[in-house]
Amino acid sequence: MTAQNGSVLAGGVLIVGTGLLGTSLGLALRRAEVDVRLRDANPEALAEAVRLGAGRADDGTEASIAVVAVPPEVTATEVLRILADGGAEYVTDVASVKEIPVRQVRAQAAEPGRYVGGHPMAGREVSGPGGALVDLFEGRPWVLCPDEATDPHAVTRALAVARLAGGIPVTMPAAEHDAAVALVSHAPHVVAALVAGRLTDAPPHEVRLAGQGVTDVTRVAAGDPGLWTEILTANADAVAAILRALRTDLDRVLTALDTGGNDGRAELRAVLAGGVDGRSRLPGKHGTAHVEYATVTVVVDDRPGQLAALFADAGAAGVNVEDVRIEHSPGQPVGMVELDVRPGLAPVLANELAARGWTVR
Amino acid sequence: MTAQNGSVLAGGVLIVGTGLLGTSLGLALRRAEVDVRLRDANPEALAEAVRLGAGRADDGTEASIAVVAVPPEVTATEVLRILADGGAEYVTDVASVKEIPVRQVRAQAAEPGRYVGGHPMAGREVSGPGGALVDLFEGRPWVLCPDEATDPHAVTRALAVARLAGGIPVTMPAAEHDAAVALVSHAPHVVAALVAGRLTDAPPHEVRLAGQGVTDVTRVAAGDPGLWTEILTANADAVAAILRALRTDLDRVLTALDTGGNDGRAELRAVLAGGVDGRSRLPGKHGTAHVEYATVTVVVDDRPGQLAALFADAGAAGVNVEDVRIEHSPGQPVGMVELDVRPGLAPVLANELAARGWTVR
Repeated sequence: MTAQNGSVLAGGVLIVGTGLLGTSLGLALRRAEVDVRLRDANPEALAEAVRLGAGRADDGTEASIAVVAVPPEVTATEVLRILADGGAEYVTDVASVKEIPVRQVRAQAAEPGRYVGGHPMAGREVSGPGGALVDLFEGRPWVLCPDEATDPHAVTRALAVARLAGGIPVTMPAAEHDAAVALVSHAPHVVAALVAGRLTDAPPHEVRLAGQGVTDVTRVAAGDPGLWTEILTANADAVAAILRALRTDLDRVLTALDTGGNDGRAELRAVLAGGVDGRSRLPGKHGTAHVEYATVTVVVDDRPGQLAALFADAGAAGVNVEDVRIEHSPGQPVGMVELDVRPGLAPVLANELAARGWTVR
Repeated sequence: MTAQNGSVLAGGVLIVGTGLLGTSLGLALRRAEVDVRLRDANPEALAEAVRLGAGRADDGTEASIAVVAVPPEVTATEVLRILADGGAEYVTDVASVKEIPVRQVRAQAAEPGRYVGGHPMAGREVSGPGGALVDLFEGRPWVLCPDEATDPHAVTRALAVARLAGGIPVTMPAAEHDAAVALVSHAPHVVAALVAGRLTDAPPHEVRLAGQGVTDVTRVAAGDPGLWTEILTANADAVAAILRALRTDLDRVLTALDTGGNDGRAELRAVLAGGVDGRSRLPGKHGTAHVEYATVTVVVDDRPGQLAALFADAGAAGVNVEDVRIEHSPGQPVGMVELDVRPGLAPVLANELAARGWTVR
């Protein structure tokens, strides 16, 4: 266990659900020498995860934090169960949609502040513990969605989990997260499925001509339809908004193809150039931009709402927080939050936060 | 030069256009010890291709076959120029749309039978000779579109070029080719560009969450907008037909998302399951199914139309011809055509062809 992150996880981590994500996380945390306990309603999946080395079967000891890694439609239920019945001091999850579970937990839990919503941006087209990879989260963004009710300790521990698993923590409000994944994951998944679906009834000699292009475009379409149905349903509004915009763009292309001539060509070229432009905005391999960040350190009170207020003020200052670390000792009245931002923006952020009443170190 | 394929290319190959495809082809043919001559209107591109080892500058000697590898909108013009002015006995091309150039050449050439349309299913997101790869065509389908007017020698030589470059020859009518590439290449390209285009105005923190999924979905969208505008314009009807079907599917998803509940879920699941199914139809790596084929050998007369009639009868027999080789010596009255088909289908095809009057060995 690393000295920097491990101490807050001294009580171990409880992973609820030993599918692809839960088992991969167990493998990564075990590699970092964290004590990992595993639970799964399916005894075979649990036994396989234990056999693979993802942790040991849960013995009921209270963990520092529980990570709920069950299908999205039962995530809130599992989070609420642990918050009510015990098993861990704090709880996070890995579901790919965040507004619904966060809202449900806020509405139904006695101590909702012990939960912080999480979503590691990692996955594979296979499911189950057998598909687990120790480096599944390596270099991938791991979103946390603290809000005004979140206990900073929940964030600190979830951050430690994300970091020890190799992820790059990113914080944003749940609604922003859901809009973002609709754009970069859910809507592209739908489109990939539609393109792949067109191949179903095509004659074999046509499909034979398929190359790397359509293979890449449709790769994610091999994902589990049951899981993706739940993901899309849980993020229906945000996904539909992107798909409606795509539909408008598609109509533009159809009109251009029908028009033909120089006007049609100009329109097609504009759409295609937009694609080149958008494509160039994607982060490099592993989703990490290789930028050295500058750090702004802020003193926060040990009370709920401080973190959310800080992130809100950073956002209002127009500065994107690239990474965050929280140095916080339980029982102490203040803690330190380190915000990493692009180098040129550190003085901007420091000034803006100071002007808004924060103590900036 | 291999004994099997090379003899028909004893006069060398003239490559017109030293962009990505032409230069890659030159590299591959040079590796097979074919004498390659290069032409390009742009002296810098020509010099770079020569420097890379793709061949030597054209000296006007008549080649066994010319491969026209210029942008699609000027392909027919270049083919017609060589047919009229000389430079090669036969001509093929590599343009990704086939009906338009084939029709133009048929209409305008004095000896249209000396041309056979071709399209190697290979490419990269980069263009120009600098992006050339010696193995660009390795294991990739290389479509040839002979019709009733095509001289068998044109096919034999184009086949030798395709094979020496490492491609897997596939023959089909030009209209079928165009429908197939609309499905497996052109429409997916448009969709990839639309998904990528949605990223253009997205806030940076949303794009930051992008992972391998959307990176794969949008990879081809980095392709040259000018080239793709011409490709889409030249295949507008077939592409529009696929895109309209996709729009209908997209509306189905939007309705399902709006409907929600069990009905919405059932509909979403059906669409996603269709995607899994379609995806599973794609060929494996390099587009080659690892199947051992059985061969049916047919004797053909040395006159135009025989090949087209043979392929038409094979198609009417319901047997997909997976590969074809033509053993043919100029001046001899008959030649041998070897048709590779799936093992169980060889007796079926042999019987059907015999019943239709062919001499099957």
